[in-house]
Amino acid sequence: MKSFTLNLRTTLFFGIDAIHSFEKIAKYIVTQDLSPLLIITGKSSYKKCGAWNVVKEILESYEIEYAHYDGVSSNPTIEMVQTAFEFGRGIGAKSVLGIGGGSVIDVSKATAVLIVNKDISARELYLKRPQVNPAVPIFAINTTHGTGTEVDRFAVATIPEERAKISIAYDSIYPTFSIDDPSLTTKLPRDQTIYVTIDALSHALESMTSKYSNPFTVNLATQASHRIFENLPKALDYPEDVEVRYWLLYASMIAGITLDNSRAHLAHALEHPISAVKPEVPHGLGLALLLPVVIEKAYEAFPDVLSVALRPIANDLRGLPEEGKKARKALEEWISSLGLNKRLSDLGFCEEDVDELVRIALKTMKYLIGMAPFEVSEDMLKRMYIEIL
Amino acid sequence: MKSFTLNLRTTLFFGIDAIHSFEKIAKYIVTQDLSPLLIITGKSSYKKCGAWNVVKEILESYEIEYAHYDGVSSNPTIEMVQTAFEFGRGIGAKSVLGIGGGSVIDVSKATAVLIVNKDISARELYLKRPQVNPAVPIFAINTTHGTGTEVDRFAVATIPEERAKISIAYDSIYPTFSIDDPSLTTKLPRDQTIYVTIDALSHALESMTSKYSNPFTVNLATQASHRIFENLPKALDYPEDVEVRYWLLYASMIAGITLDNSRAHLAHALEHPISAVKPEVPHGLGLALLLPVVIEKAYEAFPDVLSVALRPIANDLRGLPEEGKKARKALEEWISSLGLNKRLSDLGFCEEDVDELVRIALKTMKYLIGMAPFEVSEDMLKRMYIEIL
Repeated sequence: MKSFTLNLRTTLFFGIDAIHSFEKIAKYIVTQDLSPLLIITGKSSYKKCGAWNVVKEILESYEIEYAHYDGVSSNPTIEMVQTAFEFGRGIGAKSVLGIGGGSVIDVSKATAVLIVNKDISARELYLKRPQVNPAVPIFAINTTHGTGTEVDRFAVATIPEERAKISIAYDSIYPTFSIDDPSLTTKLPRDQTIYVTIDALSHALESMTSKYSNPFTVNLATQASHRIFENLPKALDYPEDVEVRYWLLYASMIAGITLDNSRAHLAHALEHPISAVKPEVPHGLGLALLLPVVIEKAYEAFPDVLSVALRPIANDLRGLPEEGKKARKALEEWISSLGLNKRLSDLGFCEEDVDELVRIALKTMKYLIGMAPFEVSEDMLKRMYIEIL
Repeated sequence: MKSFTLNLRTTLFFGIDAIHSFEKIAKYIVTQDLSPLLIITGKSSYKKCGAWNVVKEILESYEIEYAHYDGVSSNPTIEMVQTAFEFGRGIGAKSVLGIGGGSVIDVSKATAVLIVNKDISARELYLKRPQVNPAVPIFAINTTHGTGTEVDRFAVATIPEERAKISIAYDSIYPTFSIDDPSLTTKLPRDQTIYVTIDALSHALESMTSKYSNPFTVNLATQASHRIFENLPKALDYPEDVEVRYWLLYASMIAGITLDNSRAHLAHALEHPISAVKPEVPHGLGLALLLPVVIEKAYEAFPDVLSVALRPIANDLRGLPEEGKKARKALEEWISSLGLNKRLSDLGFCEEDVDELVRIALKTMKYLIGMAPFEVSEDMLKRMYIEIL
């Protein structure tokens, strides 16, 4: 398993022990005069995963001034972004380092925008998505194999009072440097291992079937889905197997590239309202419910592409448009084989909530809905929610 | 055949009629205040290919001030770079647009560096490869399917008196925007069609077997080589077939990404001395001679990867290290089937020249020689040249 550096918008250090490449980031911070550095994390996983020991030692040996905000939790809100920003402003931060999963890195990105655009609040940033001056440099040490945010230009946050979980997208929030080190992911609990990987799978299967799908992203997304179908079950049996984590991390990273270049569509558009209304629902759990239903429909438009991507779990697909149901069933059975057998009703939703979910989706997820490779009606969205109740 | 935009370091507009995306570049030039624009081309192909009509009209409708330097020929020299720079300095150029193949785009890149670093000569830039201030923005309209320079950070030029053909590499010479439009390539003459495609094939097969080879580049390089084996023969029979050109252009572009991320090694390291000494030798012709010999040797280190990449022309390879000779033979026969049957001696070299070629390679191509996946001796290089005499 080879370690390597990729020059995408982000320069990515990928591989086992890539965490030690943080020294290159430290050198960059020093030579570019980017301290004080604002470090953003959750409560404890940045330590447990093994990243912090390495980072702290390097920061100290390079005498880099930093301050640490550790208030991020999953499904982060704009309040967290606002607080992180005010903390960062207080220290005069000139760059931001996120150590964690998608939530931490996304908060880091949004904070890096606000540090430069001091007159904009987190709320305005997410609700109005205004033109902004380029963010301060962002560095990301990614500790899960899900979002791909370490190589993309998106940052998601929730506005609870609006029941909206939305994304900003700016060219300046591609991290300058990111680290994907599979050895930081071996301590991920079983549930989270599943949820983050389903997020990556969803990025792959949606981006390869979106309106912006193209040969480059189809190829990468196919690789990503194959690696996931092969390695996620193994990771549940052997969570400490770093080779298995390498491929899951690799899959989530390239699915981040496909998301960045071809976007997602309905599974993400319909999931965000779920975890916006109930922030305790993991993003990947909502996606696990929705993905089979969405793929059944997308299959009509992309039978060739999806039949190849799903081959490891459905080798009888021949690439015919009428195989959507078969594809859905294969995905459902695979997800169920991971031990995920919940329905939307198990998450506390009932039929009466569906109209509200659809309303939120139509209001806040217009862009992603427009990425679906077929005409979308309000009624179709309703039926999709009802099918997973 | 879908058109798409890729956000790599370069934002790439790819697809049939992507040339019309030049309007987005024009808008960028206006909003970022990047005129006067220095346009660099060869003598005529920028017109013949159909690009100029579109570009000129858009430049005029956006009232963009520009000046046009049309002095680039193939295997460009540092004198051309110096002249282009002085021309650009004369007009106070704030950005550079190259319309042409690799030679034109590479001269554009080097010129963009010199415009900012006025105290450095083209000669110093290439011989000393100093640290420089970031280049002015570069735009590239690529009209061949070979070099991949439209998405990478390299720029090659020849220093005739040193018998050196070398590359500079700077992060700031990734083009800001590039256009890959297959309809601009349908007029490429037969010989050039072959030569530029062999360059792309060489990028693919070398990068996937270099010391920096990794899963990301192996995957892309495999796609590139498959597309080339399938489509180059078709392009010779149906040069105007834009679907065939689409895939050759796609292959050369993704091989540019693999070159950028995993580099080339011995075929390029040994070819550059050939076309440095005899600039009339097309780069791709020298590569066609060298590639089979180099791949035979690289096969020992990468039998699995190469057996898959070569499958379209050698479906009996099983991925065993001892199949190098077989792989070489398959490549030689395929190249010969394109009508390329020259030897090094046909290009005006004889056995007495080999020592000098090796000397140049060792002096000017150290970096690429170091990328080979095996120990390289002077004697090995000598033997490789002798085998293709």
